[in-house]
Amino acid sequence: MIPTLIAQTNGRNGRAAYLPFGEKRDGALFNQSILSVKQFSRADLEHIFAVAGEMRMMVERVGSFDLLNGKILAVLFYEPSTRTSSSFIAAMQRLGGGFIPINEVKYSSVAKGESLPDTIRTLEAYADVIVLRHPETGAAALAAQYARKPIINAGDGVGEHPTQALLDLFTILEERGGIDGATVTMLGDLKYGRTVHSLARLLSLHNVKLNYVSPDVLRMPRELAAELDARGVRQFQTESLDDVLDETDVLYVTRIQKERFANLDEYAALKDSYIITPATLTRARADMTLMHPLPRVGEISPTVDSDPRAAYFRQVEYGMYVRMALLAMVLGKA
Amino acid sequence: MIPTLIAQTNGRNGRAAYLPFGEKRDGALFNQSILSVKQFSRADLEHIFAVAGEMRMMVERVGSFDLLNGKILAVLFYEPSTRTSSSFIAAMQRLGGGFIPINEVKYSSVAKGESLPDTIRTLEAYADVIVLRHPETGAAALAAQYARKPIINAGDGVGEHPTQALLDLFTILEERGGIDGATVTMLGDLKYGRTVHSLARLLSLHNVKLNYVSPDVLRMPRELAAELDARGVRQFQTESLDDVLDETDVLYVTRIQKERFANLDEYAALKDSYIITPATLTRARADMTLMHPLPRVGEISPTVDSDPRAAYFRQVEYGMYVRMALLAMVLGKA
Amino acid sequence: MIPTLIAQTNGRNGRAAYLPFGEKRDGALFNQSILSVKQFSRADLEHIFAVAGEMRMMVERVGSFDLLNGKILAVLFYEPSTRTSSSFIAAMQRLGGGFIPINEVKYSSVAKGESLPDTIRTLEAYADVIVLRHPETGAAALAAQYARKPIINAGDGVGEHPTQALLDLFTILEERGGIDGATVTMLGDLKYGRTVHSLARLLSLHNVKLNYVSPDVLRMPRELAAELDARGVRQFQTESLDDVLDETDVLYVTRIQKERFANLDEYAALKDSYIITPATLTRARADMTLMHPLPRVGEISPTVDSDPRAAYFRQVEYGMYVRMALLAMVLGKA
Repeated sequence: MIPTLIAQTNGRNGRAAYLPFGEKRDGALFNQSILSVKQFSRADLEHIFAVAGEMRMMVERVGSFDLLNGKILAVLFYEPSTRTSSSFIAAMQRLGGGFIPINEVKYSSVAKGESLPDTIRTLEAYADVIVLRHPETGAAALAAQYARKPIINAGDGVGEHPTQALLDLFTILEERGGIDGATVTMLGDLKYGRTVHSLARLLSLHNVKLNYVSPDVLRMPRELAAELDARGVRQFQTESLDDVLDETDVLYVTRIQKERFANLDEYAALKDSYIITPATLTRARADMTLMHPLPRVGEISPTVDSDPRAAYFRQVEYGMYVRMALLAMVLGKA
Repeated sequence: MIPTLIAQTNGRNGRAAYLPFGEKRDGALFNQSILSVKQFSRADLEHIFAVAGEMRMMVERVGSFDLLNGKILAVLFYEPSTRTSSSFIAAMQRLGGGFIPINEVKYSSVAKGESLPDTIRTLEAYADVIVLRHPETGAAALAAQYARKPIINAGDGVGEHPTQALLDLFTILEERGGIDGATVTMLGDLKYGRTVHSLARLLSLHNVKLNYVSPDVLRMPRELAAELDARGVRQFQTESLDDVLDETDVLYVTRIQKERFANLDEYAALKDSYIITPATLTRARADMTLMHPLPRVGEISPTVDSDPRAAYFRQVEYGMYVRMALLAMVLGKA
Repeated sequence: MIPTLIAQTNGRNGRAAYLPFGEKRDGALFNQSILSVKQFSRADLEHIFAVAGEMRMMVERVGSFDLLNGKILAVLFYEPSTRTSSSFIAAMQRLGGGFIPINEVKYSSVAKGESLPDTIRTLEAYADVIVLRHPETGAAALAAQYARKPIINAGDGVGEHPTQALLDLFTILEERGGIDGATVTMLGDLKYGRTVHSLARLLSLHNVKLNYVSPDVLRMPRELAAELDARGVRQFQTESLDDVLDETDVLYVTRIQKERFANLDEYAALKDSYIITPATLTRARADMTLMHPLPRVGEISPTVDSDPRAAYFRQVEYGMYVRMALLAMVLGKA
């Protein structure tokens, strides 16, 4: 029985014997697509983060291992995102799997007019799991509707980017040891930023207070605030970081794009007050966690980088562990 | 003796011991280039398909294995083809090998004016086998003339695309259990489609009847029909699928490009009659095999996809097995 | 203790037991960046070439091995170079490692305005070593200043391309068995070619004579010639290859770009005298080594390729061994 033999010797050099992961294929996410943060219960999150924590430990101890040896990930990006695609490619290889990079969709049969479902059904003939980045909202759900293999949404337009929200939450947990009771302040463009929307939804499964700091034209959407309110999340909106900085446990900074302002005078008046500098940090809590989804273009001064509270580059690394966990889980190996 | 030890323990975990493939390096295709369907005898085809069938069985059982562990494939595409390049990249990795993706030749030294022979001689210093897609007819043969390593032609202009023809024939064999005695109907652009030309040549090695259904301006080239006639292939040409549908065992659909018509009224009058719909299938044989090289842009209605006769997505998967077989064979491992 | 177990069984199938490389992490280059030829002593070069020679032997015997199993290389190219990126990708995979290909920086977050230090700190969260190609001089040094992981400079503008110079010198050593006492003639654009500048610096660590053959407008820069003179290197400048051909042990040919000439008549008058043909070789030494960094566009006639003195395609292959050595050394595995 070949499958049995493989189960016994899973991984090179029998190293898998040291892994805490079993072969059981009944995990909550096995063969499921990852489309939206809305699909996760708090129990799901705890499971994902437990696996991600194990991934972190294993990478720090041995670099990589062979949990997904023989599996192949298709990395299908209809718009560029070096950060996200690199993270998934690294995650898959650190688990011993292979990958098919498809970054240039203008070059592909897509450019010849092929439908997304056809492209997906083609790639699932080659790969075991597909990570999809697409400019249109709902693209990942459409793909999953046609696919036999798991689809992981790596961002679909103004829709969702669930793995970013998961890594953001994992960062808070790993940096702080917990989340319940924390005050999380979101700063910047809260209107158009899908990142903060998805993160706010995940946070609403926990006992947190949310502060929103943004110019008036870029406030958190009313519907989302109402949705969170209905779940009992305490929320506070202000235009000034100073109003909430001293109570902030986690400061999540995002970029404000000049193009969002009809009135450029308003932009000029506001923009400096949203830049994080060493002076900002002198007024912040000593154990505050400073986060940013990156890339940044001036929202956080590089002079802040050496402050131990600056967590944004560690946040990048946590992202790899979360993606390793998701890949292992949807393939039934965690 | 290191080579001997490796032969004994070939592959991770000794899994290769379960493989039916020996270490013998005297296979028919060892160190040969795959340039044209014309190079294959019927015995060659049977050998390739036997190996491809084993590849299919192994992938279905264990996902991937280490037959080509330590070998590297250069994927050199001078024009885009996500489908074909992904298929080769997946095939190589499912055999345990590595790959060098070179999809953007406009970025390469080619753009600086390097000749194809120089590029090939550079890449063969790094890789063990090169898959080449090139817009010019004869490019693969030119490459093979200069290379010490095997070249696999993945399409050279209006010339050949032999691995597509091989996977088409393998699809027929796997779907139907055999080919001899079958009636194969080719539909669409039979004049310019290199796919149907190459497939027709491979089919001529078997006992088949070929029907050609196309508008008059897109008929199968006279010279090719004569070549097939000389080999004793029964051929029948018509403009209407209805003339031959009820006797058709395999229906191979290809795309008709509007640009081929001088007279757009003629195109408008014809195009609907070449679209496959559920209504078409009600008049077709219950065990017919419906194929398409993909991508499709309307030639087969998506409402047909759920019909068990629709084989085109399975056809994609058979392509991976055929390419695995070819890679293993030219590298002397099958 | 997992690390100990891994050290004992390093590599698939215990093959690493046959490797001459220990686990010692105190090598001269461990965790260092490769930024400039200026960082190497003659002892460093001897160490690198000893390891490169072992890499060559191992590749020729077994194709690839698992020294860097579990390590990941980020291949970050801000400008295209198929040859160099393919060489590093092949080198990493022949050592059992993985890679993240980032060839299209116009598509990346860089295009959104991210700084090089931020991009580097992102990628080092995923990868163990980063190879960087960048159009600006000093980019690699800037990257190394911010990185915790080793940076390998794969060319930064008119600055340095140290791995090219190392492979050039390794080629001379492997082809000739030694370098001391040799006369090396450099031909072509000696003013702007970073390749010849870097190679000249490495050669200056050995007992060599350097001849420079170039049009007057493309002479070796005065400052570099002075630097080499201060180290005791004998140098001779001429416009005519005939002046020095008969004493030349190594002829290193580079391309002359028409655009360098203000006066196109001067270009037209000169260019043919710098093309290497079979006629040139009849007047050259029987054991001369003919090199070119490639790509070539006419500087060496293809009719010369079959001459045993034509070493430029072997030079490409030596490059892979040198890069394997560097990757293994900076990761503490050689």
